[in-house]
Amino acid sequence: MSEPGAVGPGPAAIQVSRIMRPDDANVAGNVHGGTILKMIEEAGAIISTRHCNSQAGEPCVAALARVERTDFLSPVCIGEVANVSAEITYTSRHSVEVQVNVMSENILTGAKKVTNKATLWYVPLSLKNVNKVLEVPPIQYVRKEQEEEGRKRYEEQKLDRLETKQRNGDVIFPVINPDRQTKEPQTVGYSQSSLIHLVGPSDCTLLGFVHGGVTMKLMDEVAGIVAARHCKTNIVTASVDAINFHEKIQKGSVITISGRMTFTSNKSMEIEVFVDAEPFVDESRGRYRAVSAFFTFVSLSREGKALPVPQLLTETEEEKRRFEEGKGRYLQTKAKRQVQLQQAAQQ
Amino acid sequence: MSEPGAVGPGPAAIQVSRIMRPDDANVAGNVHGGTILKMIEEAGAIISTRHCNSQAGEPCVAALARVERTDFLSPVCIGEVANVSAEITYTSRHSVEVQVNVMSENILTGAKKVTNKATLWYVPLSLKNVNKVLEVPPIQYVRKEQEEEGRKRYEEQKLDRLETKQRNGDVIFPVINPDRQTKEPQTVGYSQSSLIHLVGPSDCTLLGFVHGGVTMKLMDEVAGIVAARHCKTNIVTASVDAINFHEKIQKGSVITISGRMTFTSNKSMEIEVFVDAEPFVDESRGRYRAVSAFFTFVSLSREGKALPVPQLLTETEEEKRRFEEGKGRYLQTKAKRQVQLQQAAQQ
Amino acid sequence: MSEPGAVGPGPAAIQVSRIMRPDDANVAGNVHGGTILKMIEEAGAIISTRHCNSQAGEPCVAALARVERTDFLSPVCIGEVANVSAEITYTSRHSVEVQVNVMSENILTGAKKVTNKATLWYVPLSLKNVNKVLEVPPIQYVRKEQEEEGRKRYEEQKLDRLETKQRNGDVIFPVINPDRQTKEPQTVGYSQSSLIHLVGPSDCTLLGFVHGGVTMKLMDEVAGIVAARHCKTNIVTASVDAINFHEKIQKGSVITISGRMTFTSNKSMEIEVFVDAEPFVDESRGRYRAVSAFFTFVSLSREGKALPVPQLLTETEEEKRRFEEGKGRYLQTKAKRQVQLQQAAQQ
Repeated sequence: MSEPGAVGPGPAAIQVSRIMRPDDANVAGNVHGGTILKMIEEAGAIISTRHCNSQAGEPCVAALARVERTDFLSPVCIGEVANVSAEITYTSRHSVEVQVNVMSENILTGAKKVTNKATLWYVPLSLKNVNKVLEVPPIQYVRKEQEEEGRKRYEEQKLDRLETKQRNGDVIFPVINPDRQTKEPQTVGYSQSSLIHLVGPSDCTLLGFVHGGVTMKLMDEVAGIVAARHCKTNIVTASVDAINFHEKIQKGSVITISGRMTFTSNKSMEIEVFVDAEPFVDESRGRYRAVSAFFTFVSLSREGKALPVPQLLTETEEEKRRFEEGKGRYLQTKAKRQVQLQQAAQQ
Repeated sequence: MSEPGAVGPGPAAIQVSRIMRPDDANVAGNVHGGTILKMIEEAGAIISTRHCNSQAGEPCVAALARVERTDFLSPVCIGEVANVSAEITYTSRHSVEVQVNVMSENILTGAKKVTNKATLWYVPLSLKNVNKVLEVPPIQYVRKEQEEEGRKRYEEQKLDRLETKQRNGDVIFPVINPDRQTKEPQTVGYSQSSLIHLVGPSDCTLLGFVHGGVTMKLMDEVAGIVAARHCKTNIVTASVDAINFHEKIQKGSVITISGRMTFTSNKSMEIEVFVDAEPFVDESRGRYRAVSAFFTFVSLSREGKALPVPQLLTETEEEKRRFEEGKGRYLQTKAKRQVQLQQAAQQ
Repeated sequence: MSEPGAVGPGPAAIQVSRIMRPDDANVAGNVHGGTILKMIEEAGAIISTRHCNSQAGEPCVAALARVERTDFLSPVCIGEVANVSAEITYTSRHSVEVQVNVMSENILTGAKKVTNKATLWYVPLSLKNVNKVLEVPPIQYVRKEQEEEGRKRYEEQKLDRLETKQRNGDVIFPVINPDRQTKEPQTVGYSQSSLIHLVGPSDCTLLGFVHGGVTMKLMDEVAGIVAARHCKTNIVTASVDAINFHEKIQKGSVITISGRMTFTSNKSMEIEVFVDAEPFVDESRGRYRAVSAFFTFVSLSREGKALPVPQLLTETEEEKRRFEEGKGRYLQTKAKRQVQLQQAAQQ
């Protein structure tokens, strides 16, 4: 499973495996995408924290800065083992790129499936001073091109992070708990949902901040509730757009995770998810937007085939605008995928 | 620790002990009242399910119907052991009364403190048909008076359950997520809070319904957030009023737990908590009120002394009315306690 | 269930009971041996810490030093109650022997079964200086022989601990993650597996070290994965060989738990498990072997009958040697059991 590392004598790859339990899955027995995202992030946190502490110097903890867009290629079931393997593929002066592969394994039949591939970016924060970003020891590359390709990925994600930071400032509307009985089914208001969670010690790193994986798990959970309310069937995570973690969330905060549907195609739903944090006792700052992202869900039949999805009814101008934007993202992704398929066919 | 049972040849008492961990406590290291309530309820569920199945007949699961008012007499800390002992003290035709004592034990110093005493009522529901209440095998009493006293307690709680059922129907206002920055501190709106939780398999009994203890733990958690937002200090649960569980909550539901402050005395805060359930995929019914209760919290100094509490600012007529009702409950409880102290002094 | 204590006025026995939940069990509904081992260890930690602090002196926490071989006599199911009772049966100058009985109880039918009996050894470590072993207050024995028998057990386990300490030094080959597709089924490499876990606050005692029970639960989990990969059926823990805890594992460490099959008989599998700790932030030391043990699993049919197990294919000289050693342990255990049966028949 651990492909011939892009990286030569650098840090060893790491593998995390876990049997999927009932609490990891929905009522139909399909493991939540969020469970997988949480495992991916834990593997990334371990390997990058280990690497950043591999040379004498100030001890540090690697904090998740960004996850690239990732697709869930096949559903995982209770009782299967999720094998998550991570390796470091690039380091800049202050950040680490980790590539993670997830394989589900039915340990009874031996059947294995690639579940997803993800790329994460971590930043080392000093254990003594959480606001101090430390330097990352460089890794060795087998081929010169690997470093150049990595630098290109680094520059691209850096640009995108700046953009979302600005965009994040734009849009903030609280998702208020709707009285669903008076709403029309299939409207945006009908399915919009929130979760509210008090951050406990087990949610946090050694620095006392929430693990990025814990946040992503809750985001996937609320997106799943929105999707299930909309189509009333068994739904699973199909993909997650790039997520940027601009703001840390401190232990003892209350976080509100809100989701609303933005777009539906024939067989998929796009849900926008916001995470707002409120550090309620230590009031040095008020409520703030910590993360936001787009999740795509599909509805599955008992045999695992994608079902048609009821079309989203947009009512306000805002909703219509967001629907069009969602359609843009949908078509862009579709186009990219076709290019990839053609390239693969030509090889 | 298991005092000489009030009950003779009846079902044996049960004891549950557990070391308190960081996840069981708040940031100051005080164990949440809700952690204790959850342990109490699990002990009660075990002993009453065991008893109700002790004679040949339809198998059943005992479901929590009511918890009597309980006081938290002293705070418990991380590393201490909570010893929970339960015994059945009365049976009616369709219900079981369980009395539970909790002692915290510092296993380093050996110091033990009574944490609280609680009385719970369970009802046996058929495993085959969850809407069918079965008959409870009678227990044997050592002294005739024990049965009469039990019957008196049974009649009293029955009356009270009917009353809250009607009251519950009255008041339903959703607690909407406030923008705290624009609110005056110490108002009702400023501290009101909600948690929203998706019910998973581990929250549920064999019948697929949420354990009463899981619900109470979440209720205590939201009440604690309200109290901490109001007074910005270390707060602990002082008491919980009687809670009636009229409505079951099914696996896969989304539950919203909302709390708002109703009353403050010099050194205590009363918080009203509502639990609303929404069975979001299986939509045979809409959102409904499952439970409600009053929690009282106090603010503690580092030395464990009760601190003064900022007075609650009431703005609307509704808030003023609820404040007066809270004051009534407060004075009534205070009067009852003085009668008990006088009776104790005369003995 | 609580047998008349072997010990007279000594420390009171303790009982821990818990309803088994879906997450405690595998897909077939059988509770993991690891869940039971964790409960056993928690009961032992409570009773021995309590005892070691029962006389004025330096406060201490009892740390698990060793668990004797234990057999799982009957599987436990979701919804059943696991009743764990522990009592102290011997004290040496620096250690405490705790005997623990586990009974599963079907609270619907009332059926009770002995699940297992375990013997654990704890050592009191000073709360102020974790490297200082304190003295244990002696217990009182009802009969003189009890003390002598205890001393004999103490001497035996002491010898065995020294031996494994040396053996541990010998064999360390990391279990590398295999590419199972290229491996022959039923080989050692095909089923070998690893788990990697980041140690959080709730995994640890007051001293900031991992609870022995947490480690054993993870060991059982990886052994279960190895067993399921080998025989592709429903498997359960049958027994665990004596485990010695030579090295503490600190909060914030990353632990790798690796398992490989060493031996198969007609109806059982032996799996060797290693736990390696890496205190990756606080780098005063590198990666080290913390624990190792042998687990035996059996494969169960739907009716709970032991099924035949495919024979392990050994490829290297090392694997053949380990197979022979496993066979030795298997035959020795079998012989011991027959002696016990004969003795029981003669009484």
